[in-house]
Amino acid sequence: MAMLANLPRNEDGIATALGILGQRFGPRFETGQALREQHGHTTTWLRNQPPDAVIFAETTEEVQEIVRICATHHVPIIPFGTGTSLEGHVNAPAGGISVDFSRMDKVLAVHQEDMDVVIEPGVTRKALNTHLRDTGLFFPIDPGADASLGGMAATNASGTNAVRYGTMKDNVLALKAVLPSGEVLKTAARARKTSAGYDLTRLVVGSEGTLGLITEMTLRLQGIPEAVSAATCSFPSVEAACNTVIATIQYGLPIARIELLDALTVKAVNAYSKLSLPETPLLLVEFHGSESGVAEQAESFGEIAGEFEGSGFTFTTREEDRNRLWQARHDAYWASLGLRPGAKGISTDVCVPVSRLADCVTAAQEKTQEMGFIAPVVGHVGDGNFHVLLLIDMDDAGEIARAEGFVGWLNDLAISMDGTCTGEHGIGQGKAPYLVRELGEPATGAMAAIKAALDPLNIFNPGKIGLPPP
Amino acid sequence: MAMLANLPRNEDGIATALGILGQRFGPRFETGQALREQHGHTTTWLRNQPPDAVIFAETTEEVQEIVRICATHHVPIIPFGTGTSLEGHVNAPAGGISVDFSRMDKVLAVHQEDMDVVIEPGVTRKALNTHLRDTGLFFPIDPGADASLGGMAATNASGTNAVRYGTMKDNVLALKAVLPSGEVLKTAARARKTSAGYDLTRLVVGSEGTLGLITEMTLRLQGIPEAVSAATCSFPSVEAACNTVIATIQYGLPIARIELLDALTVKAVNAYSKLSLPETPLLLVEFHGSESGVAEQAESFGEIAGEFEGSGFTFTTREEDRNRLWQARHDAYWASLGLRPGAKGISTDVCVPVSRLADCVTAAQEKTQEMGFIAPVVGHVGDGNFHVLLLIDMDDAGEIARAEGFVGWLNDLAISMDGTCTGEHGIGQGKAPYLVRELGEPATGAMAAIKAALDPLNIFNPGKIGLPPP
Repeated sequence: MAMLANLPRNEDGIATALGILGQRFGPRFETGQALREQHGHTTTWLRNQPPDAVIFAETTEEVQEIVRICATHHVPIIPFGTGTSLEGHVNAPAGGISVDFSRMDKVLAVHQEDMDVVIEPGVTRKALNTHLRDTGLFFPIDPGADASLGGMAATNASGTNAVRYGTMKDNVLALKAVLPSGEVLKTAARARKTSAGYDLTRLVVGSEGTLGLITEMTLRLQGIPEAVSAATCSFPSVEAACNTVIATIQYGLPIARIELLDALTVKAVNAYSKLSLPETPLLLVEFHGSESGVAEQAESFGEIAGEFEGSGFTFTTREEDRNRLWQARHDAYWASLGLRPGAKGISTDVCVPVSRLADCVTAAQEKTQEMGFIAPVVGHVGDGNFHVLLLIDMDDAGEIARAEGFVGWLNDLAISMDGTCTGEHGIGQGKAPYLVRELGEPATGAMAAIKAALDPLNIFNPGKIGLPPP
Repeated sequence: MAMLANLPRNEDGIATALGILGQRFGPRFETGQALREQHGHTTTWLRNQPPDAVIFAETTEEVQEIVRICATHHVPIIPFGTGTSLEGHVNAPAGGISVDFSRMDKVLAVHQEDMDVVIEPGVTRKALNTHLRDTGLFFPIDPGADASLGGMAATNASGTNAVRYGTMKDNVLALKAVLPSGEVLKTAARARKTSAGYDLTRLVVGSEGTLGLITEMTLRLQGIPEAVSAATCSFPSVEAACNTVIATIQYGLPIARIELLDALTVKAVNAYSKLSLPETPLLLVEFHGSESGVAEQAESFGEIAGEFEGSGFTFTTREEDRNRLWQARHDAYWASLGLRPGAKGISTDVCVPVSRLADCVTAAQEKTQEMGFIAPVVGHVGDGNFHVLLLIDMDDAGEIARAEGFVGWLNDLAISMDGTCTGEHGIGQGKAPYLVRELGEPATGAMAAIKAALDPLNIFNPGKIGLPPP
């Protein structure tokens, strides 16, 4: 992966398109090296492959115009939200134009009775929730970063509360996207349910900019819960924690979040935040509902945890206490970096059936120890999704190569457990080699056929999903 | 629609394929007229267009073999579950082979800890829930008919409890399908979350047999709730009932079902079941949760209903009382037919944003009255989805033509309200003319491009979704 190849560049076409687009977009067309590198940048270890220019688009019509010019000259287009994806999604291996959507950031309509909102793609999730502040509604998907909602849709983001509210796929009701032909695709009406033809909404969500450039979205909203409770509990082993998760879900408790921190992460958090949590696996849980409901649910969780050797169970419904309880989770990333000062964190992402989660996490921990890595684990364990954070000296090529080896090993392990090489980070460039191992050639062949049908010139984010078979 | 045209038939190819398939499948290959007509039949008013033969497939390999033979000779293939779809999905306008999946009815694996099940497509929803009886788990989607789960996936079925548990799209984790090439597509691993490439699962779900023949599915299951409560309440108007629905959802009450019966339906049920409900719009609600939770929720619903002039509020958590309360809903279809003895019911299906539901239902009622129809209305109102049941003398061509006129008018009204011409019945043949009005040519063009990419010979259920633009 560090050896990421460039793809053939259409130099003449790129030069011509740059000339036309530069004239058309004036100061909103930029070619400075730092800006271009930042627009190829993802929070990743992958080599930077900057686009040739960045255009700050302001309207759907402008996006159509850019697409038509690039189509005429066979020039790649890569959509850019906030650049917080992790697998090289916004790299430009064949050069081309990065279309920056940050200025398309208007909330177009809030429908309170229908509990939905129509937005432009550059609105970030925090900006949306600020906008919704007085409506009693909120948008629940939280991948950590304050990503743009267009980028979150394009990569099918999720995060800590997917166990209750689903992923982007479950929360985008409809969208508009500019197709490689320059036409504007409307995927669905605003009704909450539809059986009207192929599900183009969910085809574009998660397509990582390879099929359409999202210019408008209708998102489902949720009512802000009357009450929230939080609980934490320590466990003697990852297995005991995972069995608690399974039992909690089977019992039907409507968990809003259930997060695992492994012993190493707890140790990091203790050091970082001056806490004194037992340095064993920790579960953090959150419930949303009525005042009496969330208290009852947290107590039921405590009882279940007790059956699986859980200890130190604590719960609260008061906001300041909740924040204190969850401090370990909020601090986990920065605290973990403190385990090896100067190192950079490489975050992996796999997801397995919950029954295999303890085996998969435990095997990953053993493997990183055996390979000599410092590698804390956090997991969205209600979904069987977890991340190993490898702390790497990015100046040590040998260490990077060994980290790549570990990532590949973990992907293959997850796939062997009927899991996936990516639960929420997406394919991009980093996971591309594993897709065919996971699903087989009929699936990657079907993806390539769909890509070729909708983007016959292969100008939308080339080199990512939808590659023809080698 | 009654004028449904046949498509050109490939007579030579059909004759050759019939010979080969007859020899290969012996007694499981049938050409009797009654059986063929039944396999083109859907619970519909559309003209019957029977296939040329029916094959009862028993394995994925057999399905692959049928597809390869039909592909060689350019012969249409139409998958058949139980024939309970409503819009001509299993008609054979160009002739061809109906593949009956009723013998592929094995439950392959129940994963209790993961709360999923792997099944063949011919398993019906009731058979699945019988099989799951002792596990504490159930499959929630209930479209009314005891349909095959393969058919329910192919048509993206839903029904009364979609407001809580979603539609088939939300409950199929992964599937295998034979492609027009004869290859077996695996769409996803068994993990609960994935971002691994285009969402082929949700592309096949709802594709109505036009892209792949489903031969295996992994379905999400739910824990059987500890307790269930039911409530009913009468309202002075459809608008008051709909406002109660909106407030209930906004309040965050986790309704499992919320059904509307209009005054005419209530009148029919009173006559049919000797009840004495007020003959005004009625809401029936169900809650799933803990003992104390469902009681609290039903009471909260009663308070909300009271704010919108609801009267006669009754609730219970006892099963026999629940069944009695819900009797009106269970009997609605047969009771409604009693409003005009000898008539046949034509069920329409539209879905609009919930804020427009009262307007849409009221306009539909006024229109049917104005047109002289007896036409009770029931609705899955939490989703904005409702059905008008037109009671029609099927021997009166003029009446059928007027009914078609009404259906078209209602589709267009729903579309004008940013809704859809089908919330759950699907496109088939009956809704085909409305798809482009709802979504526009970029969407139908994209569907046609995807169809042509995966089925270049157009042999999978031709004449349904994925038609090239006229």
